[in-house]
Amino acid sequence: MTSSRYTYLGPEGTFTEAALRTLPEAATRELVPMVSVPAALDAVRNREAGGALVPIENSVEGGVTATIDELASGRPLMIYREVLLPIAFALLVRPGTELSEVKTVTGHPVAQPQVRRWLERHLPQAQWESAASNADGARLVQEGRYDAAFAGEFAAATYGLHPLVTDIHDAENAATRFVLVGRPARPSSPTGSDKSSVVLWLRDDHPGALLELLQEFAARGVNLMRIESRPTGGGIGQYCFQVDCEGHLSDRRVGEALMGLRRLCAGVRYLGSYPRADGGRPQLRVGTSDEAFLAANDWLNRCFDGRGELPGEVP
Amino acid sequence: MTSSRYTYLGPEGTFTEAALRTLPEAATRELVPMVSVPAALDAVRNREAGGALVPIENSVEGGVTATIDELASGRPLMIYREVLLPIAFALLVRPGTELSEVKTVTGHPVAQPQVRRWLERHLPQAQWESAASNADGARLVQEGRYDAAFAGEFAAATYGLHPLVTDIHDAENAATRFVLVGRPARPSSPTGSDKSSVVLWLRDDHPGALLELLQEFAARGVNLMRIESRPTGGGIGQYCFQVDCEGHLSDRRVGEALMGLRRLCAGVRYLGSYPRADGGRPQLRVGTSDEAFLAANDWLNRCFDGRGELPGEVP
Amino acid sequence: MTSSRYTYLGPEGTFTEAALRTLPEAATRELVPMVSVPAALDAVRNREAGGALVPIENSVEGGVTATIDELASGRPLMIYREVLLPIAFALLVRPGTELSEVKTVTGHPVAQPQVRRWLERHLPQAQWESAASNADGARLVQEGRYDAAFAGEFAAATYGLHPLVTDIHDAENAATRFVLVGRPARPSSPTGSDKSSVVLWLRDDHPGALLELLQEFAARGVNLMRIESRPTGGGIGQYCFQVDCEGHLSDRRVGEALMGLRRLCAGVRYLGSYPRADGGRPQLRVGTSDEAFLAANDWLNRCFDGRGELPGEVP
Amino acid sequence: MTSSRYTYLGPEGTFTEAALRTLPEAATRELVPMVSVPAALDAVRNREAGGALVPIENSVEGGVTATIDELASGRPLMIYREVLLPIAFALLVRPGTELSEVKTVTGHPVAQPQVRRWLERHLPQAQWESAASNADGARLVQEGRYDAAFAGEFAAATYGLHPLVTDIHDAENAATRFVLVGRPARPSSPTGSDKSSVVLWLRDDHPGALLELLQEFAARGVNLMRIESRPTGGGIGQYCFQVDCEGHLSDRRVGEALMGLRRLCAGVRYLGSYPRADGGRPQLRVGTSDEAFLAANDWLNRCFDGRGELPGEVP
Repeated sequence: MTSSRYTYLGPEGTFTEAALRTLPEAATRELVPMVSVPAALDAVRNREAGGALVPIENSVEGGVTATIDELASGRPLMIYREVLLPIAFALLVRPGTELSEVKTVTGHPVAQPQVRRWLERHLPQAQWESAASNADGARLVQEGRYDAAFAGEFAAATYGLHPLVTDIHDAENAATRFVLVGRPARPSSPTGSDKSSVVLWLRDDHPGALLELLQEFAARGVNLMRIESRPTGGGIGQYCFQVDCEGHLSDRRVGEALMGLRRLCAGVRYLGSYPRADGGRPQLRVGTSDEAFLAANDWLNRCFDGRGELPGEVP
Repeated sequence: MTSSRYTYLGPEGTFTEAALRTLPEAATRELVPMVSVPAALDAVRNREAGGALVPIENSVEGGVTATIDELASGRPLMIYREVLLPIAFALLVRPGTELSEVKTVTGHPVAQPQVRRWLERHLPQAQWESAASNADGARLVQEGRYDAAFAGEFAAATYGLHPLVTDIHDAENAATRFVLVGRPARPSSPTGSDKSSVVLWLRDDHPGALLELLQEFAARGVNLMRIESRPTGGGIGQYCFQVDCEGHLSDRRVGEALMGLRRLCAGVRYLGSYPRADGGRPQLRVGTSDEAFLAANDWLNRCFDGRGELPGEVP
Repeated sequence: MTSSRYTYLGPEGTFTEAALRTLPEAATRELVPMVSVPAALDAVRNREAGGALVPIENSVEGGVTATIDELASGRPLMIYREVLLPIAFALLVRPGTELSEVKTVTGHPVAQPQVRRWLERHLPQAQWESAASNADGARLVQEGRYDAAFAGEFAAATYGLHPLVTDIHDAENAATRFVLVGRPARPSSPTGSDKSSVVLWLRDDHPGALLELLQEFAARGVNLMRIESRPTGGGIGQYCFQVDCEGHLSDRRVGEALMGLRRLCAGVRYLGSYPRADGGRPQLRVGTSDEAFLAANDWLNRCFDGRGELPGEVP
Repeated sequence: MTSSRYTYLGPEGTFTEAALRTLPEAATRELVPMVSVPAALDAVRNREAGGALVPIENSVEGGVTATIDELASGRPLMIYREVLLPIAFALLVRPGTELSEVKTVTGHPVAQPQVRRWLERHLPQAQWESAASNADGARLVQEGRYDAAFAGEFAAATYGLHPLVTDIHDAENAATRFVLVGRPARPSSPTGSDKSSVVLWLRDDHPGALLELLQEFAARGVNLMRIESRPTGGGIGQYCFQVDCEGHLSDRRVGEALMGLRRLCAGVRYLGSYPRADGGRPQLRVGTSDEAFLAANDWLNRCFDGRGELPGEVP
């Protein structure tokens, strides 16, 4: 059964695998590393897997464009879950290597800016060369090509290496956000602490178009959590926007904002509503609760019958 | 049958009667002049009349506050029709009076600023005194109290007077707008050229509260036609707003804007949707037609099933 | 010397005179009652008086349109001071008259809605007829034309009447706001508790024009205190707006907002900055103090030299 | 003289070098390839070079985060010029190699998505492996490590290779935008076709903060050209924004918008104003020209003297 298989951005031993293993259902799935984000997602599109875990955002490096662009184009996919993984690297060496012997280090290009200051302080002479992934870097150390690799401490065992230094991270609060992606279906059930994601294409590029788009959220009291502009491929100056907002599709304010965007925009791709990994809850502005929406709807229906106003309803 | 009776702001022979007689159904109704706007409207509230025609706005003098305040307070009423009457005064005199003999003139206080320049030019020495209504002024001329009265030409016959000069109006395009008011019931049917009226009470007087209110209209592409601030009676600085906007309650964009106001405001009194006397039609902004609203609603419903996106729907 | 003369909306014994006498400088001026707001203001325009005190707003009746329209049109005038007068009527009768003997009452039309409920409760049978002013009503009682007049208690002595009942007012907090108007000159000095008034003509009547106008204030954190739409005389649907906002012309945020309006609007008439009668002070939004404006201006100047950024100025 | 030296993102033979050579002054400068964007920019910071040309945006891959992040942090730099280079790849092979013999291809990771569809059509079996740069890929082909490299046609000669296929680009209008960066100094002179760049840090992350930021531009009629959110490094959910807008620092509307942002934001880094490579000119909204700003400023100054209104200035 393919739905019992989850792909992820491999190889084995990367942070993505560590993130995937934090999901309870991972224990009962076959976890398959893939060589790239597109490969992991295409396996889902082609029904060879039931889900794929891929990184979407890093607090140091920013959006993972391969993921964002794959979600925005091609056959539709949806996000069902997000995972926040604090990022801390270990410096993996072959057993016996000492810090003073490390002349060459490797790791994923994304790792480099996250350990740059540590390197300057502790290994100022070391030569950096990029590897295809952190895990791949570990393998290259195993093979003797480099002296040390930055990777997750959990990768040491896989490659027979020793974590010489652990918990390396230049930035406090460094974290990577991953999303569990599946084929379109019912969104995850609302939990009260949810977010929703969409991709938006502006209808035309008039001044103020982006402002109008944001006002569709603001007018309904829906808070924006992230906005990422991406080129559409149509030339410099042509962008679409991936937006995360607070709340669930089934929240009235979110539903109305999304319908507003659908009317305003040239295109809207709904990417799902799912529990927030940070557990945060929206600060509701007065008049934006589901109750307020339903009461307003009742009132409108009564207006159609000339019974809009109940005694005492206006000051 | 009281519903066969229409009250209006009397006395007979005023512009209000002339406006009322432009309505086809006036021919089959008993038309009853009342001494004041509140009296005309209370007759409707008390089921002594089926409707009342009262002035609401004059292009020279502005809003008729008695009407606006009566609609905003007390038992609810609704507007079902509006009438635009170009304003032109006749100078009514007792037969035989010549212009050079006119030393005293009268008329409703509202008439004065509309004929001031004409008076300065043609009767610079004449003394003005206000009458309770234009028709009442005519009566006072009939009784010999004044030499001439400004009133509608149609009032001459009623009072046995002669229209010495006609078509007097300082301002081009001078007009008065009247509304036909009834007890709350189904709004008039949509015609494609409609307006809707509401009274709005802000929830609190924070800076930007009025801006938020207007954005509820703007966010749905609903054009404002008029906004009139009125004191709530709660002290200087406490206002409510009577607003006319383009479109009918049954237009989706209008309904959603009104629901937005209902959620945002401390109180909303819906005063009805009715055909525009000027015959104007809204310039719909892209994405604000009923079709666009329905399509967005369909889309949202599909999103709930994971079928939000049809092939080719995003760029 | 005409500047030693102040006109006011007469006749003697009205609330306007009472308001004027609250101003310290009134003690040293010749106070001249005039028959109308235009007459009081024209005396200033024609240099026959140094100032004029006229009512501009009543918490029950709303804006005094004669004043608003006079300020908006004709030769420019400016407001230098405002006075808030709590409104309480006395029922003035000829000495010896008892309440049960009062069959007819009079007063200014504006007084009526402010004593209506009192009348219903205490003199339900009494007949109301309007007078040209509250003081004029008192005079008519003195002459025996009516049994009682609503006026300020201070008018009793002038007309030899007895204040049978005092402190009559339907609404709590009922007040009238008056303005002291003079010929254009330097605005009053800033006090920290100021307001500024302008009249605004929209450039064209496109949808959202009013919203844009309000955003000029909002974008600079300037709070609106009052907005009054008035017909321009150009026909139904043509309005200008009189706006009061918090702050003084010399406050940077106010000056920039007014310049923004000047650029946006077809016309702006500055009506002055003057101390607030309510003593209120603006709640400044972050970044809208004069210091913030000056710091931003310094920064911009430095940017022109490539020295925009001082060490540590960006996060 | 270091100011006669320009660094660029090397190695030789990359598109960056080609872009740099389109600048007239490149002919008289020593052009020095650097191994990375940070290295190229640090040479400028350290006064070892007068300028650095680095890529900032690609119409397929999006923003070049290394460049954006370097400009946003560290010692200030400014942009003085931008270059738009249409992107078309050549497939470089060792002389004699035929298309059917190509089993392995290489190139910069950024190149891959831009030739993916061409590869699928013409070399569906070929194995892709990434190189550190397009030029480095060419070198690896020269050394025999791969059969073919995607690079600029201009790189062929440098590496003794043959451009087997030219003008390869999946997307129409594919282009890369480069910026010439120097130490802070006077911005480039205004040309009438300019853009300005800033980095903005929000003061706090309240809902609507981004909207407020965009309104500072919109309120002055300044069009946004690009907005790129970047993590601040402070954790998931902490972003700064790099924004390009139309116009020059010396345009009044731009200056006022930037001062508004400076007041509103926790930090603003001005990155310069420079000629637009696309030659576009702003569509000025009414009331946003320099003349309109100056006229409004004159008016405000006159208001301070009571001479705000010239005859005929209000409707």
